[in-house]
Amino acid sequence: MAYKEKYPSKLLEEAVDAISSLPGVGRRSALRLALHLLKQPQENVHHFTAAIDHLRDDVKYCRHCMMISDDDVCAICSDRSRDKRTICVVESVRDVMSIENTGQYHGVYHVLGGIISPINGVGPSDITVKQLVSRVAALVSPEALFEADAPGLEPNPGEVILALSGDVEGETTAFYIYRQIAQYGVKVSSLARGLGFGDDLEYADELTLGRSIINRQIFKP
Amino acid sequence: MAYKEKYPSKLLEEAVDAISSLPGVGRRSALRLALHLLKQPQENVHHFTAAIDHLRDDVKYCRHCMMISDDDVCAICSDRSRDKRTICVVESVRDVMSIENTGQYHGVYHVLGGIISPINGVGPSDITVKQLVSRVAALVSPEALFEADAPGLEPNPGEVILALSGDVEGETTAFYIYRQIAQYGVKVSSLARGLGFGDDLEYADELTLGRSIINRQIFKP
Repeated sequence: MAYKEKYPSKLLEEAVDAISSLPGVGRRSALRLALHLLKQPQENVHHFTAAIDHLRDDVKYCRHCMMISDDDVCAICSDRSRDKRTICVVESVRDVMSIENTGQYHGVYHVLGGIISPINGVGPSDITVKQLVSRVAALVSPEALFEADAPGLEPNPGEVILALSGDVEGETTAFYIYRQIAQYGVKVSSLARGLGFGDDLEYADELTLGRSIINRQIFKP
Repeated sequence: MAYKEKYPSKLLEEAVDAISSLPGVGRRSALRLALHLLKQPQENVHHFTAAIDHLRDDVKYCRHCMMISDDDVCAICSDRSRDKRTICVVESVRDVMSIENTGQYHGVYHVLGGIISPINGVGPSDITVKQLVSRVAALVSPEALFEADAPGLEPNPGEVILALSGDVEGETTAFYIYRQIAQYGVKVSSLARGLGFGDDLEYADELTLGRSIINRQIFKP
C-alpha cells in the first residue's frame, strides 16, 4: 500500500510499523490491533509481550531432532515408547504438530527447518541435512544394529520417512536427502499420495488421480 | 474451537495463548505468527515487543480532546490554524484518523472513548461526556465569546458535530449528549446521511434512500 496514514502519535505509528511487519497483517489491521492493545490493562500487555520475548529468548531445539523444545531433548525423543529407528523427516515444527495430531505415528522426527529452494537462496547447508545424515549413520552403526536385533525379532535396518510437500522444492529436497542417506542401507519411504478422504473423483486433479490408480491398494472391507 | 492442539513447548503454547488473545486472531494464525517470530533475529523480536510496550506505557491522551498524543496537548489542538469553536465528537481514535484523512475538516475533535451501550455495560460515565460538557461550557463563557466576536466578524456561538455511527447505540449517545449540551445554546449538528458516492440506487437500503430523498440538496452543476 503506497498510501500511508497520518498517525496522531509517533508511538502509535511505531507500534503499527512493528505489528504490520507480521506476515498477513496489513497496516489497517495493525492499527486495529494496536488500539486494542492500548485499551487493555497494562499488565495484560506486558504479559503479551513477555510471552513473545520469552519464546524467542528461551526456547530450545532438541539436539536429536531439532524440534522446538523446553529442554535439550524434546518430549518425543525422550519418550521411551517411541520407535527410535523410524525417523520422519519434515520441513517444519508445524508439520510435526500436524503428524502428532493424527495419533498414527510412533517413531521420531527430524525437523529440517526449511526446504532446499535455489530461488529463495536456501541450499542444503541452510537446513539440517548434515545432522540427519549423522543420525542415519548412527542408526546403522554396529552397536545400534546389535541393540535393534533383539532375540526373536526381525533385524530392523531402520527407516527414514521423507514427509515433505509434493511441490518441486519438496521433491528436490527429498531427492537430495535420498542421495545422501541411500548408502547406509536404511529403508527410505515417502508419504502416500492419492485422493484425500471424502474427495470427489470429479474434482481431483489428473496427477493425483493418476497416482491413485497406479498405487491402488487391495480393498479391505 | 474446543479442540486444543498439543504443543511441543510450554513457551510456544504461552506465546500462542497470548497472540490468540488478539481480536480476530485464531489459534492457528497465532501459531503461524509465533513460529514466524521465532525465525526472526532476536533484536527484531525485541524491537517488536518494545514498540508495543512503549505504546502502552508512554502514550498520552490530549487533555483537551482525549486523542492519543505524544504530548499533553495533541497536534490538532495545538495547531493555531484549526477552528477551536467547532468540536467534532467521535467514538474513537480511528474515527479522528478517518476524518483527518478526508482533509475536509478544520475544527477540533472530542474523543468519547466509547459509545453508550447498556447491553455492553457502558454508561455515560464510562465515556468522556463530562469533559465534553465542560468544553462546551467554556466555549460559551463570556470571555470565549468576547474573543470569538472579533470586530467585523459574525458572532460565533460555536458548533458541536455529533459524528457518531448510525446504529442504535450511536443514536442513543448522540441524543444523550444533545440533552447535556443543548442548554448552552451551541449549534449541534450531525453527519449527513445518504447514498455514498458511487453507490448504486438499486442496491441502497430503504432507510438510506428515504433519508436521501428527504434531505435532497440543490443540484450544483
